[in-house]
Amino acid sequence: MAVRNIKLTICYDGSDYHGWQIQPGHKTIQGTISEAIAGLVGCQARVTGASRTDAGVSALGQVGLIELDSPIPTENLARAINDRLGADITIAQAVEVPAGFDIIGEVKSKLYRYTICTSQVRPVLQIKHCWHLPIELDTAAMAEAAKRLLGKKDFKSFAAAADQRESSVRTIFRCDVTAEGDWIYIDAEGDGFLYNMVRNIVGTLTEVGRRRWQPDRIAEIIDAKDRTAAGPIAPAQGLCLMWIKY
Amino acid sequence: MAVRNIKLTICYDGSDYHGWQIQPGHKTIQGTISEAIAGLVGCQARVTGASRTDAGVSALGQVGLIELDSPIPTENLARAINDRLGADITIAQAVEVPAGFDIIGEVKSKLYRYTICTSQVRPVLQIKHCWHLPIELDTAAMAEAAKRLLGKKDFKSFAAAADQRESSVRTIFRCDVTAEGDWIYIDAEGDGFLYNMVRNIVGTLTEVGRRRWQPDRIAEIIDAKDRTAAGPIAPAQGLCLMWIKY
Repeated sequence: MAVRNIKLTICYDGSDYHGWQIQPGHKTIQGTISEAIAGLVGCQARVTGASRTDAGVSALGQVGLIELDSPIPTENLARAINDRLGADITIAQAVEVPAGFDIIGEVKSKLYRYTICTSQVRPVLQIKHCWHLPIELDTAAMAEAAKRLLGKKDFKSFAAAADQRESSVRTIFRCDVTAEGDWIYIDAEGDGFLYNMVRNIVGTLTEVGRRRWQPDRIAEIIDAKDRTAAGPIAPAQGLCLMWIKY
Repeated sequence: MAVRNIKLTICYDGSDYHGWQIQPGHKTIQGTISEAIAGLVGCQARVTGASRTDAGVSALGQVGLIELDSPIPTENLARAINDRLGADITIAQAVEVPAGFDIIGEVKSKLYRYTICTSQVRPVLQIKHCWHLPIELDTAAMAEAAKRLLGKKDFKSFAAAADQRESSVRTIFRCDVTAEGDWIYIDAEGDGFLYNMVRNIVGTLTEVGRRRWQPDRIAEIIDAKDRTAAGPIAPAQGLCLMWIKY
């Protein structure tokens, strides 16, 4: 029986998890899915992920990879794993990919959506999946500022100080700010994001939305290559990984 | 100090509660709000509600009434109570009403919304606030059936067998079925609803949506005045009390 490489498209509500990555003593998305697969195939299994989402962050299109040494047909796999998962994680799709498929290295682009709710009344039904900020935000200024982020740049100012990766150069293809009633959506698409980068971008755009900073300031923040030049980090629960393209 | 009557507009995520009504040993919406108010005013308090929503049912416009013997100004009351509530219940508004205001008897109409999600993939972010039914439903037939419910009728067939109220005659002003992508919304407005009536209506409309029953059958079900003539009850978590008009 040949070992197959299976690419999983994964959705989850991150509210009740300590993020994607397995940590001893904590409930994590990676740990929960790996256990479900291990229970199904009857031996140790570990799913590797394309993005390490933080505690409280959700996903509608995380991508995971598993090596499968089991006779279960690929087309039955998503349902079989889902039967072993609770209501807050689901495998949307399972497809076979060639041996050597590099789930992190072959990423072409990712889209993250950040959701802000500005209503005076607390949005009780969505409170775990948004940043409730009951103030007026200038979304036109935020959109103007977001444009200054586009292109290939060194985003060191937007990376968590703890980020130890060699290069902090990334390309942002799109950063749209959309207002719909009391809701604001910030959609950021890029070839990759530094640790906490989207949340730091959102916190910075929000400073512009509060009219504390001008949209022009984005260029200065990028030039500074210093985390303290950017705005505060936005809370995790507003963030959702929407999809990853290969 | 005069006792004031205060009408509260209340929003809640009912997922983690045993319904509205106080029950010993259970966490309920009425109990939680009453405790928050008691803590604020420093003596026993109880909020009475216009609707007894079931376990798992949410609300964006429940109405409650309290008698207040406290110097706290009415305009500060919502915020003061909210400071003592968790993330899943909030007071949207507090206004003074005349002595003798009858919170149940003076209701003119109520709107309930029921949400169904038909996507093949489990909607992980909304799973606690919808009925996930991953099948094709004929929403045109459902809308046609819903029209047969309009008007003043005896809805005994849609009432829980346990419902002991004297009259089962109610007036439904509106029953709209709206499809938006994978989502179906059933909006029912009436002068009042019998116990489990909206959920029994939704379960019945869903039988029509599955093409098991014709829209015409609604008239027969109403004529039967028998709960067993209608469809199965729809799950509680899809139901939300949107508003109450006086």
